[in-house]
Amino acid sequence: MERVAIIGASMTQFGQRDAWIRELLAEAGQACLDDAGVSPDAVEHLYVSNMASGEFEGQTGVPNALAHDLAALPAYTARIDQTSSSGGAGAYAAWQSVASGASEMTLLVGGEKMTHRTTAEATDVIASLTHPVEYKQGVTLPSFAGLTARLYLDTYDAPRESLGKVAVKNHKNGVDNPHAQFQKEVDLDTVLDSPIVADPLRLYDFCPITDGSAALLFCPESVAREYTDNYAVVSGIGGATDTHVVHERSDPTTMGGVVNSSEIAYDMADLGPEDVDVAELHDMFTILEFLQSEDLGFFEKGEGWKAVEEGVTDRDGELPINTSGGLKSKGHPLGASGVAQVYEIYKQVVGEAGPRQVEADVGLACNVGGFGNCVTTTILEGN
Amino acid sequence: MERVAIIGASMTQFGQRDAWIRELLAEAGQACLDDAGVSPDAVEHLYVSNMASGEFEGQTGVPNALAHDLAALPAYTARIDQTSSSGGAGAYAAWQSVASGASEMTLLVGGEKMTHRTTAEATDVIASLTHPVEYKQGVTLPSFAGLTARLYLDTYDAPRESLGKVAVKNHKNGVDNPHAQFQKEVDLDTVLDSPIVADPLRLYDFCPITDGSAALLFCPESVAREYTDNYAVVSGIGGATDTHVVHERSDPTTMGGVVNSSEIAYDMADLGPEDVDVAELHDMFTILEFLQSEDLGFFEKGEGWKAVEEGVTDRDGELPINTSGGLKSKGHPLGASGVAQVYEIYKQVVGEAGPRQVEADVGLACNVGGFGNCVTTTILEGN
Repeated sequence: MERVAIIGASMTQFGQRDAWIRELLAEAGQACLDDAGVSPDAVEHLYVSNMASGEFEGQTGVPNALAHDLAALPAYTARIDQTSSSGGAGAYAAWQSVASGASEMTLLVGGEKMTHRTTAEATDVIASLTHPVEYKQGVTLPSFAGLTARLYLDTYDAPRESLGKVAVKNHKNGVDNPHAQFQKEVDLDTVLDSPIVADPLRLYDFCPITDGSAALLFCPESVAREYTDNYAVVSGIGGATDTHVVHERSDPTTMGGVVNSSEIAYDMADLGPEDVDVAELHDMFTILEFLQSEDLGFFEKGEGWKAVEEGVTDRDGELPINTSGGLKSKGHPLGASGVAQVYEIYKQVVGEAGPRQVEADVGLACNVGGFGNCVTTTILEGN
Repeated sequence: MERVAIIGASMTQFGQRDAWIRELLAEAGQACLDDAGVSPDAVEHLYVSNMASGEFEGQTGVPNALAHDLAALPAYTARIDQTSSSGGAGAYAAWQSVASGASEMTLLVGGEKMTHRTTAEATDVIASLTHPVEYKQGVTLPSFAGLTARLYLDTYDAPRESLGKVAVKNHKNGVDNPHAQFQKEVDLDTVLDSPIVADPLRLYDFCPITDGSAALLFCPESVAREYTDNYAVVSGIGGATDTHVVHERSDPTTMGGVVNSSEIAYDMADLGPEDVDVAELHDMFTILEFLQSEDLGFFEKGEGWKAVEEGVTDRDGELPINTSGGLKSKGHPLGASGVAQVYEIYKQVVGEAGPRQVEADVGLACNVGGFGNCVTTTILEGN
């Protein structure tokens, strides 16, 4: 079977945006087509990664609106929702559409418009993904993060400071990302002294509420060569689910969806964690970067925190993680985040990451929905 | 490339159900696995067709919940939304997952829980898919249906009674469908004397608000043979989009999405409309059955109404349409409807349609989202 390539990518400014979801999606979609030099006429399938345009904005049917706005009619369209990992799921749908032969040119646009709602309202919409038995106890995703962070620190003898260092690292990386919501460094004291949200986690352990959109253009490798000699190949991609009820997991410091989805992706790419040169992990909460870096096989269980302490995951370290700034500083517009992760890996493997560029032939993006409820792992390689 | 087969199908009772979306999805999903004799362990991908569980019920993340409830973890899951054609889009996603090699066993479950909301509330959620410029004028989908029906009757000199005969035919078919919401005949006078909703359309020209779920199990043909010697093959499938703004269409009596999606499906199947033995069309409003029967190429433009008048589309006619009772009598739980359409065609081509059985080697399902905004056409053949 022919390999699937990515030949263009874009992302809008992330942050508080004076634009509705339709406008955000159209902005990223158009920029992606422009980046690849592809006409909207050529688009055969158009997927939109979005969790909750209906709940946030009272507007549904956004893929149809986007096809219209981009002049991509009669391209087939659908919305892919996997809550906070809708972007990764969209990448999987786009890959499948090309790999199955259904489409020779698939545009994926992920986006979310959230900041017009209060943080409490937005958190409640997100919490609607949890199991009712937990939701009714008032458990939202930040609560799970606090409980898991406490368990992790206790179990693996990790210092509280190590979590703070994830925030410091990712904010530092975000300074060089012109699309990031926060383009400024924070020091460790600021993180450790910020207000408690879910003990032991504090404000700077959390990603913000964000508006934004990102896009990618997929096609068979033979078609890619007609447009460019510098593209990325999706060499591995896989998805998996973990329990809906978080308290049913035997070890809440292990994310089964990360383990299982990455196994599928590694097998497909015929690569292992030791081959990965750069990675974007889903640091919706600082603790998640530790868990994923271990469950992806980058570090031994319980040792992810040491890698951060020792600078291994810094931009100039052995395995740079979240060169984009991560969700932590870049922001987390739900449906856009997974697409923006693959955007960063694409830019790294095609050598267009500018001041964030690291040496990378192989990159990996891990997009996590819920509290590890559903996960997609994508591996890209330069051509 | 190996062909994709369907080896199992199920649908729940449609109607007013005392069950939440999670329960409806699990009921259909389990019944489908039982129908095929497949263990949940074997499921690799699990797609949920659903438009608005968040808006209707405050519950998102339902694919993850379903994977949990069916004991199908760690199967990959995602939600596919294409508004009222989410079911057809789910079938396309499921087909792509198998055809691409990503999954060897894909379960698709479509469902919606609506009747706990008032008709006005439900209609408003559905209307949120329309373009804001039309929505703000108070235009909902029934309004479009009324305007289009008037135009069709005027343009093609069709009698008002012909629309009513669609309702009479589909109600008659529904009598033999034990899952249908309305299992009773209606006579033409009842239809024509029912209360006006959107002139010239009356109450019996509209499908009801419905709760329900339906499911299908997809795998490569070689895997199908391990389970059964009587399965269906997806010989053609395609999707297309029309303008988001309905008033931008040059001829509102033609549904471009139906034309374009069926062309893709016919090409793939190497078949034409003359080869179709039975069809399920999206009769959310009676007028839509005329439009689709013409835009699929079954009848000349402006002559679909004559086929109904002449009994061509009756169960014992030359081309039976909506043997299931259609959305009109079976009901229209948004995310379930497209899946239930393919369920009926599957039952027909494998010879398991019981009292509704017609002679059929080739069947077609046309699922329409919005007012023709996005359409998926699926063609099945017996093996």
